[in-house]
Amino acid sequence: MIEDKNPVRTELSALGEFGLIKHIAKHIKLGNPSSIKGIGDDAAVMQYDSGKQTVVSTDLLIEGVHFDLTYCPLKHLGYKAVSVNLSDIYAMNASPKQILVSIAISNRFSLEAIEELYAGMLLACENHKVDLVGGDTSSSRIGMVISITAIGEADKDEIVYRSGAKPGNLLCVSGDLGSAYLGLQLLEREKKIFTENPQIQPDMDGNDYLLERQLKPEARKDVIEQLKEQGVKPTSMIDVSDGLASEILHLCTESKTGCKLYENKIPIDDTALQKAREFNMNGTLCAMNGGEDYELLFTIDIKDHDKIKKCRDVTVIGHITDKSEGTNLVLTGTEMLTPITAQGWDALLSKK
Amino acid sequence: MIEDKNPVRTELSALGEFGLIKHIAKHIKLGNPSSIKGIGDDAAVMQYDSGKQTVVSTDLLIEGVHFDLTYCPLKHLGYKAVSVNLSDIYAMNASPKQILVSIAISNRFSLEAIEELYAGMLLACENHKVDLVGGDTSSSRIGMVISITAIGEADKDEIVYRSGAKPGNLLCVSGDLGSAYLGLQLLEREKKIFTENPQIQPDMDGNDYLLERQLKPEARKDVIEQLKEQGVKPTSMIDVSDGLASEILHLCTESKTGCKLYENKIPIDDTALQKAREFNMNGTLCAMNGGEDYELLFTIDIKDHDKIKKCRDVTVIGHITDKSEGTNLVLTGTEMLTPITAQGWDALLSKK
Repeated sequence: MIEDKNPVRTELSALGEFGLIKHIAKHIKLGNPSSIKGIGDDAAVMQYDSGKQTVVSTDLLIEGVHFDLTYCPLKHLGYKAVSVNLSDIYAMNASPKQILVSIAISNRFSLEAIEELYAGMLLACENHKVDLVGGDTSSSRIGMVISITAIGEADKDEIVYRSGAKPGNLLCVSGDLGSAYLGLQLLEREKKIFTENPQIQPDMDGNDYLLERQLKPEARKDVIEQLKEQGVKPTSMIDVSDGLASEILHLCTESKTGCKLYENKIPIDDTALQKAREFNMNGTLCAMNGGEDYELLFTIDIKDHDKIKKCRDVTVIGHITDKSEGTNLVLTGTEMLTPITAQGWDALLSKK
Repeated sequence: MIEDKNPVRTELSALGEFGLIKHIAKHIKLGNPSSIKGIGDDAAVMQYDSGKQTVVSTDLLIEGVHFDLTYCPLKHLGYKAVSVNLSDIYAMNASPKQILVSIAISNRFSLEAIEELYAGMLLACENHKVDLVGGDTSSSRIGMVISITAIGEADKDEIVYRSGAKPGNLLCVSGDLGSAYLGLQLLEREKKIFTENPQIQPDMDGNDYLLERQLKPEARKDVIEQLKEQGVKPTSMIDVSDGLASEILHLCTESKTGCKLYENKIPIDDTALQKAREFNMNGTLCAMNGGEDYELLFTIDIKDHDKIKKCRDVTVIGHITDKSEGTNLVLTGTEMLTPITAQGWDALLSKK
């Protein structure tokens, strides 16, 4: 959906590729001392202090696979595309500093539409003190494609990998889970109703939280900052993009451990639980397999338990065990263990 | 075109996204001491010495826009996709060290096809001593999309920007120009003939050089190395991706200068000239506007003239002037000046 705030329409073909880059570059200011050179040369140049490590992550977003422009405003899309990448940098316990953005677009988009997209990206950059330092623009005869590379830095001994979890560690997650998935279900349902009967107006009342979780997720800079303030260095960490189940299995596989996850500890927002019921879905399964929450899942040494209690919006949901004990979910109201399986979104099978 | 060397077909859906990543990761070894962490975490981690600068570039390649799989073998495509990015790093006078690769593919590709693609990428990596340290894979319901980010390093005072050219500097280019464009014309012609009459076999005899220039361009690591050996630091540099005209205008705009380019100095291969004639095209225009040569265009101080003569495969094609003199081409056999205009490939208009 292109918000029609501005009826002026400038054809991209009138600008050409370089004109578009120049136009975009006008809105971009470099803020970090480490950003030596941004848009306008063959590559971006950065200088880091010695002792620092450079962290780079990249994501590709394809129209019709990762986003649907019928209900995703371009500004939100831009914001989300950047958040998703920064989330990967935070998941390394690093600080994002620069991004590069490549987009492929057809001439069905106007300059104003692309400005909306970049406005969303630059808003996310501003919130996270990140510079957009380069990229590529290209034509697409099909859908829109967005590729973002994020670059961050951290002291060598601050970086947290997926592989450091140890038996006895506590398993923690930030925020709540499943809401983004339920927001998507809601959007898909309203789209279907609208497609079948365009006279009916979408009914989105009371669903703001779920929609925002889907359309405008926040990368958890605040969680990383709180952990630093409390002097807690996680032993392993990952961001929740594919669903809790998939991410827990990644941590356990990489760390060569098992885990025990308690169903009744999984943080799920009330509106999400309500909406799950409305959709005749199981709230726990939405959290386990829904994905796109962009929360941080991490493990900590048990000695840090008191410190983690002081962190806002962090929940202890289980603990790490020996590998031989398997990766299990303890069902609420029972002592029953059920093996965790990732049934979530699979990029190569998904029809989303 | 998928080379049918191996009749075995493994469906990507049988591996899933993580299975595919794991499969790809098996073939990847890290070689540079600065590659701390590659595939397998949220982001790649690199450590550079102090005093070094990090150089990052990214490119997006879309099927049907940048490549045509009817005549581009996947291994060549992989090789080219990497070369194109490394070329940007060399154009900064830096050394590429890592790449991140994101691809979106539909299930029309088999695992073997994707292996071919990565084999080409890894061959380019090997030739340039570069590590593939990360990326993203995704489904595409449309064509194939490839996004590559290249990261390199250089000492701070070695980096060469587009903006450093000064009046009196010599304008130099590596290799020859226009061949890649003529290779493309040839492939397009044979595709058209084949589409109209599949009985007719493509006639590619004697066109090896032009085809290789189009399908498997080489990033000019050797030129950067020669310049270092000779102790020549260019005053400005850019790689020739959109055609000589477009790149010269970039250098002059960024450096706030004019230039005088001599038509009779532009290096064009004999087979290219011959093919241009066959297509009823002007060889100079192919060099000026064809693009995809991935040669290096650079300026040097006149005091380095003798040194540059010792560099293999580098031609002096003109010089930089004051801005007031304009950016001109001196036509062969005359003293006539004609203003240089970039009529080349424009990503947003192209029907390629």
